[in-house]
Amino acid sequence: MLQSIKVIGFDADDTLWINEPFYQDVEREFCQIMKCYLDEAETSKELFKTEMQNLEIYGYGAKGFILAMVETAIRITDAKITSEEINRIIDIGKTLLNMPIQLLDGVENVLQKLRRKYKLILATKGDLLDQERKLQKSELINYFHHIEIMSDKHENNYRKLLSHLDIQPSEFLMVGNSVKSDILPVLNIGASAIHVPFEVIWQHETHHDSTGTTDFSTVSSISEILELL
Amino acid sequence: MLQSIKVIGFDADDTLWINEPFYQDVEREFCQIMKCYLDEAETSKELFKTEMQNLEIYGYGAKGFILAMVETAIRITDAKITSEEINRIIDIGKTLLNMPIQLLDGVENVLQKLRRKYKLILATKGDLLDQERKLQKSELINYFHHIEIMSDKHENNYRKLLSHLDIQPSEFLMVGNSVKSDILPVLNIGASAIHVPFEVIWQHETHHDSTGTTDFSTVSSISEILELL
Repeated sequence: MLQSIKVIGFDADDTLWINEPFYQDVEREFCQIMKCYLDEAETSKELFKTEMQNLEIYGYGAKGFILAMVETAIRITDAKITSEEINRIIDIGKTLLNMPIQLLDGVENVLQKLRRKYKLILATKGDLLDQERKLQKSELINYFHHIEIMSDKHENNYRKLLSHLDIQPSEFLMVGNSVKSDILPVLNIGASAIHVPFEVIWQHETHHDSTGTTDFSTVSSISEILELL
Repeated sequence: MLQSIKVIGFDADDTLWINEPFYQDVEREFCQIMKCYLDEAETSKELFKTEMQNLEIYGYGAKGFILAMVETAIRITDAKITSEEINRIIDIGKTLLNMPIQLLDGVENVLQKLRRKYKLILATKGDLLDQERKLQKSELINYFHHIEIMSDKHENNYRKLLSHLDIQPSEFLMVGNSVKSDILPVLNIGASAIHVPFEVIWQHETHHDSTGTTDFSTVSSISEILELL
């Protein structure tokens, strides 16, 4: 199947560079601030609830996450939280928009080798400006023929992407860390996917395999995709 | 000059549909909440200051605006504002993400006529998900060959757009309400632009003409562009 591949799409966060650990750090600091009102596990649970409630209107990204922390803090304290504490929450949240970009092992070597034979694209979801800024900082921009920042990674968005690139599903391979966002929707439209799990994953991106779809390879590090291609 | 045009780009907010008045309504409500701390004109001034300070990290759009209101409220009250009031601010801000889409007069007729002869594209800046949602609600999506949501409307973004569309600057015309975002950067890369002023404009988008660049037409309503083409 992989013989027909012409274009390889790479997810960005936690596939090319480290992202989720920064969010988890901020969440831990948030739970610390909230500790005098509610224990940390409960705060985390309530934060996730707010995020899921807001997902349809806010979408993905740091600004929605900051607002979710503030909203959660007000809700779970019955508005007893002080505005000084809210200010601290916003300040720690803002650090997400300035996170340093640390490439994952082997990323640059893989891109360097694959671009000789394939057209490489970046397909990421989230906040437009923030994703552009991270890509800029990563210094990887020149490896990519096209950058696609999507509001979400549904099948239809992938279909639009392929039609935009003017290629058939059989010519597209997606590489990413999220089975839910990078693998399953891609397989469902008839394209290929390789899963490169990252050490941590956001709860919302976890995938509970009940149907047993396993028509994709999983590799333990991005360098291994060179052997599959 | 307009004889060579092949592609027409339309700005969205306050060019195709009403946007800024909703932001101004929310800002007025915000100033009402703050009235017991600071007078309305001062609050507006401080809010604008926060928005400008945050622009580089937040970019454009409603989520950054909500956060700017919260940050302003905490700052100008020396953290005396209650979290209940902050909650109200977030609630009124969230209405921006659900604003009804009211097309401006003549828009649909103009798009209908122009699409027979030109390739039409939408070029807007702001939050990805929010702009997609507004376009969806507008029911105008089928008039456009391509949708470009940019993090900002700088010359370089327009250059990338033209190269993506594979056209020369002389073949591109931009139509929009902001001299700063829709007109000047487009003229600066050698393309054409028609200015359709809207009744109100966000302070950040106002343009103070000192150089006297007037190499573009201004029309009083979008329907008039039909006469120029």
